[in-house]
Amino acid sequence: MSNKILIQTLNTGIKNKINDTVCFKLPKLSTVSVVFTKNKFPAAPVIIAKQNIKLKKPKYFLINSGNANACTGKEGINNTIDYISIISDKFNCQKEEILPFSTGIIGKQLPMKKIKNKLNNKIFKFDSTWMSASKTIMTTDKFNKIIKRNININNHKISVIAICKGAGMIEPNMATMLAFISLDIKINKSNLDKLLKKCVKDSFNSISVDGDMSTNDSVAMIATGSNSNVDFNNKNIYIKLESAICKICQDLARMIVKDGEGATKIIEINVLEANNDLQAKRICYSIANSNLFKTAMHGSDPNWGRIIARLGSIDSIRFNPEKIILKINEIEVFSKGIESKRYNYTRLKKTMKNKEIRIDIILKQGKAKHRIITSDLSKQYIHINSAYPT
Amino acid sequence: MSNKILIQTLNTGIKNKINDTVCFKLPKLSTVSVVFTKNKFPAAPVIIAKQNIKLKKPKYFLINSGNANACTGKEGINNTIDYISIISDKFNCQKEEILPFSTGIIGKQLPMKKIKNKLNNKIFKFDSTWMSASKTIMTTDKFNKIIKRNININNHKISVIAICKGAGMIEPNMATMLAFISLDIKINKSNLDKLLKKCVKDSFNSISVDGDMSTNDSVAMIATGSNSNVDFNNKNIYIKLESAICKICQDLARMIVKDGEGATKIIEINVLEANNDLQAKRICYSIANSNLFKTAMHGSDPNWGRIIARLGSIDSIRFNPEKIILKINEIEVFSKGIESKRYNYTRLKKTMKNKEIRIDIILKQGKAKHRIITSDLSKQYIHINSAYPT
Repeated sequence: MSNKILIQTLNTGIKNKINDTVCFKLPKLSTVSVVFTKNKFPAAPVIIAKQNIKLKKPKYFLINSGNANACTGKEGINNTIDYISIISDKFNCQKEEILPFSTGIIGKQLPMKKIKNKLNNKIFKFDSTWMSASKTIMTTDKFNKIIKRNININNHKISVIAICKGAGMIEPNMATMLAFISLDIKINKSNLDKLLKKCVKDSFNSISVDGDMSTNDSVAMIATGSNSNVDFNNKNIYIKLESAICKICQDLARMIVKDGEGATKIIEINVLEANNDLQAKRICYSIANSNLFKTAMHGSDPNWGRIIARLGSIDSIRFNPEKIILKINEIEVFSKGIESKRYNYTRLKKTMKNKEIRIDIILKQGKAKHRIITSDLSKQYIHINSAYPT
Repeated sequence: MSNKILIQTLNTGIKNKINDTVCFKLPKLSTVSVVFTKNKFPAAPVIIAKQNIKLKKPKYFLINSGNANACTGKEGINNTIDYISIISDKFNCQKEEILPFSTGIIGKQLPMKKIKNKLNNKIFKFDSTWMSASKTIMTTDKFNKIIKRNININNHKISVIAICKGAGMIEPNMATMLAFISLDIKINKSNLDKLLKKCVKDSFNSISVDGDMSTNDSVAMIATGSNSNVDFNNKNIYIKLESAICKICQDLARMIVKDGEGATKIIEINVLEANNDLQAKRICYSIANSNLFKTAMHGSDPNWGRIIARLGSIDSIRFNPEKIILKINEIEVFSKGIESKRYNYTRLKKTMKNKEIRIDIILKQGKAKHRIITSDLSKQYIHINSAYPT
């Protein structure tokens, strides 16, 4: 009996000729945790997957790419149930043991005739690779996103494989972000849920560039049940695991920003010494979503005035303007309500040409902090998003 | 004794050769109301003007254009006091009777030597026009903004003159929006305050395109004290006045959107049948500030999926997704959680080429509503804002 996730990629007629569907067969001893989009118009597969994971332990995932099956009403729900029923019949399990995921265009019904035909006639050998899966789930992505990494915890080698899709700028017309992370460990469901929640918070939920959340976003984590001789429920071991897995998720998330539509730079914004997490987070997002900030970064312009004016304009957030310190690429440019006196503008301007930019906003209030990763705003972004047809 | 606002425009060395400063001399019987930016880094003239209007009835306004005198610390405050002292000495009044306003680049000190010299040596004839004033306050504006309109209230002709500056997209590096509105009526201070507050809410505060509020934004309304035979404090007459003046302010605000950086279209977003005003307002701003929405509009693409996905992603706002109706250019495109069946896509697509686009989001919850005016997002916007030097 395999302790590994088995994979079948195939074409079901959603995309033209290339693979558009991935089927994961999960090991018997696996534990599964999923976080779903909070969007108020969740796609049909999100609605079904949420129900199913409450009812049964999942045995299979079925992931479509190319059509989000979002805003498709009752027909979309019925279609989802229809195609997962083919899989449950095929593998002699209950349809509630299958979790569906989709990504692609919003508002179009699935080509059910093709899908049914292809799923029914396909012989599932489960001999596909993670690499093939990572390519199959791509939509507007310019490159496939996969991380295979061995981590060492208390002298045990843990193998992690993670894939995701998404292209930085949240793109609600092409439902955005899916991620699947496999860990060859044994851990109980509540600790896996805790681990996934923490990892998503510090990675995928710290890159949303337009403040949007798509109708289909889902992140699933599977512990395969291997390495059962290590007790990952033990607090000290869990903490080491959490730190290592968060890092992997952050690296995946950074790939999404790098693939951002029209992105030419990756920008890290840190809000430090805030009163509380929510305050730090709100400031991060407000700066990251300012077009004036993003265009300044695109133009390699260390325009502190735009950052300060944006900071000052955020509603219902309290801070002492006199105490704010602003650093760009670790050079202090603003403090005590005024431009810093002694910094070397020429040197700062030179660092702005880098592909990675760092902004630090220090509030001098408390101990909370937040970081987000974003990209710049280019003419290419406008081009991609103005030209895209509905 | 004149019942009109007298105007002097001049150059004080902030801009090169062209006029950069306006001095308004207010009639003796005038009433003045001002609303100021809520930005937490208010410019020096905002700090001083706020103090002065609390202490004294204003006799003069002094408006600089080209330098915002924002983020300039104590030196900026002292400079403001210094230059208004020249005016108070010249006209034998108290410096608290002068309100300073500024607009222009952030973080640079004023060229005080030039300003002092020019103000001291200028002979103020107060023979300049409103047209000249409207041109003098321009910064990145492509055209000057002035409305002269006679309104008829209870068979009395009321003359209104209003000027403003600002270029649509809030531009916090060039402090943004100033407006001055003159009404030849007699009205008490508390009713003028009420009138200004209402007008600003329905006009200038319903166009902010980036969700920003600059360090210098100010709107001043002056009732000259004329037409004292009509009682504008009377409730019925006041209501007619409010309606007429709001309309003028909305027309001014629309000029600002039209002048938006890189704007090619004006988009009106209406949120209707909402639970409360705040909910309606938050949805308006969220849609208006979505780059995916703005780029779709730029590309004349009736992309309802982006609007619906954005709507669904707004945090902590409750509505029933099944009840939402979305109209683009008055054509229903989405209802009952799904694309509307019977609309004519070709006809809709054709209307998207118009210069004015209308979006209606009907929540079917209550009676509250909100409207905002915004513009599209073009490559020209990126060009202007990436190329601008600090």
